Amino acid sequence: MTTRGSRRLPPEQRRRQLIDAAIELYSQRPFEQVSVEDIAAAADVSRALFYRYFTSPGELFAAASRVAIDGLVARLTTPAEGPLDQRLRHGVAEFVDFVEHHPAAFVAVVRNSSAISTETGGLVKEVRLAIVDVIKAGAGLTGELPLIDLTIWCWAAAMEEATLRWLREPVLGKDALIDWMTGQLLAMLMATGQFSAG
Amino acid sequence: MTTRGSRRLPPEQRRRQLIDAAIELYSQRPFEQVSVEDIAAAADVSRALFYRYFTSPGELFAAASRVAIDGLVARLTTPAEGPLDQRLRHGVAEFVDFVEHHPAAFVAVVRNSSAISTETGGLVKEVRLAIVDVIKAGAGLTGELPLIDLTIWCWAAAMEEATLRWLREPVLGKDALIDWMTGQLLAMLMATGQFSAG
Repeated sequence: MTTRGSRRLPPEQRRRQLIDAAIELYSQRPFEQVSVEDIAAAADVSRALFYRYFTSPGELFAAASRVAIDGLVARLTTPAEGPLDQRLRHGVAEFVDFVEHHPAAFVAVVRNSSAISTETGGLVKEVRLAIVDVIKAGAGLTGELPLIDLTIWCWAAAMEEATLRWLREPVLGKDALIDWMTGQLLAMLMATGQFSAG
Repeated sequence: MTTRGSRRLPPEQRRRQLIDAAIELYSQRPFEQVSVEDIAAAADVSRALFYRYFTSPGELFAAASRVAIDGLVARLTTPAEGPLDQRLRHGVAEFVDFVEHHPAAFVAVVRNSSAISTETGGLVKEVRLAIVDVIKAGAGLTGELPLIDLTIWCWAAAMEEATLRWLREPVLGKDALIDWMTGQLLAMLMATGQFSAG
């Protein structure tokens, strides 16, 4: 409806517009297949304007991922009170809720995690490490527990897959997905507990 | 010890030499950071010779991944007899054994799975689908079981992570790793079974 460049936006809004357009594209295609031209076209701006805000798609993708990750990590908490399964379920529900409301950002970061290797791989790692901390705190586990850390890390990787698939094909309702994910976490933790003991 | 190009190899051997050199490099660095020059240097051949065998690093990586994947999938079987946990453990042991003997190929394919998006992402998918089939057969499960399929798929994704970490830092011995992985699989399957029933 508007001619390219006809809307004058404050820099922060324009930057955010580019980030949102890029997140949408990166959720549909791998990183290498998205060009500056694609992003500029999706944000309805010129190529030159893109370069006023970012030096490369890599820099934009890093910025977009950072916005998404910070939003997710800030929400990951478990309550201090209540039965174990309910405490953990709360953290899982926050994760699923984030994914449901920011599907493009989630898909973009997970799908491209190894493309911008260090930077974004580092972001996925950051989320998993945050998840390990939150779940350990929620389960009242403290200190160095390499096998427990490994178990939660692996669960987080598994649940990235489960939620990616759920976004594409929701075989379970949202509450059922959260229940199932919580059940998987408890089962994995218990199996590791028995393994360590045995 | 040999001058570049001094050894004359039959084409199939030369091709394999390039594939092996590339697998080694891709296990250390992300796909985008490996050039034709790097591969040629590692295989001790000229850039021109590389192009006699492959049109691009992408084509070589696809060929290298194909070799690795075929070798792994061919080994994934479970025996028809014996207790459930032992049958599943056999399949898990084949997987870990492959990873132990082909660490570079495993790391290269998993690390770069989204880089050469469709092709290699497709290869990781192929392995996970093979794992789903083998585990279902091993557990005597047949037919359409979307939640069981999801559970095994997620377990496979989790175990890719566990084995990647194990290669870097073997906190468990090989047998203990296989036991732990089998225990995680049984726990996840049982939790899903209870979930479906409940």
